[in-house]
Amino acid sequence: MSQNHKITLMYNGARYGGWQVQKNAVTIQEELEKAFSTILRQDVSIIGASRTDAGVHALNYTANAFFDTDLEERRILSGVNAVLPEDIRVKSIKECDEAFHARYCAKSKTYVYQIDTSIYGDVFKKPYVWRFKYPLNFENMQKCTPFFLGRHDFSAFMSKGAQAKTFEREIYECSLTRQDDMITMKIRGNGFLYNMVRIIAGTLVSVGRGFLSGEEIPQIILSKERKRAGITAPPEGLMLYEIEYE
Amino acid sequence: MSQNHKITLMYNGARYGGWQVQKNAVTIQEELEKAFSTILRQDVSIIGASRTDAGVHALNYTANAFFDTDLEERRILSGVNAVLPEDIRVKSIKECDEAFHARYCAKSKTYVYQIDTSIYGDVFKKPYVWRFKYPLNFENMQKCTPFFLGRHDFSAFMSKGAQAKTFEREIYECSLTRQDDMITMKIRGNGFLYNMVRIIAGTLVSVGRGFLSGEEIPQIILSKERKRAGITAPPEGLMLYEIEYE
Repeated sequence: MSQNHKITLMYNGARYGGWQVQKNAVTIQEELEKAFSTILRQDVSIIGASRTDAGVHALNYTANAFFDTDLEERRILSGVNAVLPEDIRVKSIKECDEAFHARYCAKSKTYVYQIDTSIYGDVFKKPYVWRFKYPLNFENMQKCTPFFLGRHDFSAFMSKGAQAKTFEREIYECSLTRQDDMITMKIRGNGFLYNMVRIIAGTLVSVGRGFLSGEEIPQIILSKERKRAGITAPPEGLMLYEIEYE
Repeated sequence: MSQNHKITLMYNGARYGGWQVQKNAVTIQEELEKAFSTILRQDVSIIGASRTDAGVHALNYTANAFFDTDLEERRILSGVNAVLPEDIRVKSIKECDEAFHARYCAKSKTYVYQIDTSIYGDVFKKPYVWRFKYPLNFENMQKCTPFFLGRHDFSAFMSKGAQAKTFEREIYECSLTRQDDMITMKIRGNGFLYNMVRIIAGTLVSVGRGFLSGEEIPQIILSKERKRAGITAPPEGLMLYEIEYE
């Protein structure tokens, strides 16, 4: 059996149809498989930790791949990065136990959702924030974050079109901070349903706008009705921050 | 006399020939004057705090301009930002004392120079860092920063082609920090000679590479000889961070 490798990478997802290989869109997985296969002169399949959506970014994405090579890790790294488009960068490649599986071994995932509420729009953060120009009541939004903690059926916070079999997820951490005009939601859980982080972010924004009362959130969760939660925040503000393993 | 206004703005300088209006290059000042003149339907001259070089960025640049208008400040702001290219954003426009002059009233300026030493290159910070792939001895670099503090003739840290009449400048703060693979130099002074921040950053990098000994820096300053200092670091890593007034 080939040697297993743990791969960490980052990407600006703006130009991609998400992580997973699909027809009609260029994906991160496809670009990585092409780059690794080119440099290693063999077919390499890349197993990703998470199916990020079209337009979503990642700061520390984890993947794994089986291959055999005589090349040193730093040679593979520089070769792969030379072949990859500039908006996808492999940060490290390490030999790992054959039992390591980027998806199945993940204990939790942390996402960050950033909202630029400035009237002008930060030129440097622009590629990875949701530009939101209407006034938001930050304190009201912040009060809602504890409602999402713990184990719940999050069906009300899931878009249609997913293949999930179970709808219970556990959220370990959910915080909202503000620095100048930038609002940052950080959320860590054992897993997330389809669009769940974006619907939670959008629901907080609906609360901040006054369209929803924060106190309704526990009932919205219990209702399991998607239509009762807030909007789905756009993908550009979402960043997969880190995937935690044992 | 028209009403004076204090204007704060930010820009990604990559596409521009610096701040000041000049032939053969598009500049920040020119774009601002066009945008303000269009929105206010009068010729508006913009006085900038500093002549940033081609390719250099600004997070909080200060300018001032005299004009009269019935438009509310937030209307001018949104109008100007609608007309400006997306890499220049006006953050605020406030009426101010007629004696306020963005350049002459500035007490100090703070610059930040960022060096990305990762082997892969951060995709999100890329537009405003110097990507430097060779090993740097950070501790040796950090030991040098106190040598730049205080009042000195900084001729050794000035490129030719400037019109400075005096070469003494006072540095109030100079620090070097590291977070993961990103090295950040922060420097605040009452003024800077042509390319001075970039030559200081380049000199620190020369020390980090081992091409210069940090202990030579006091002698290099005293020598007033440009050729004894290190390289001029490239513009893309430089950001005018803030301009301080009384």
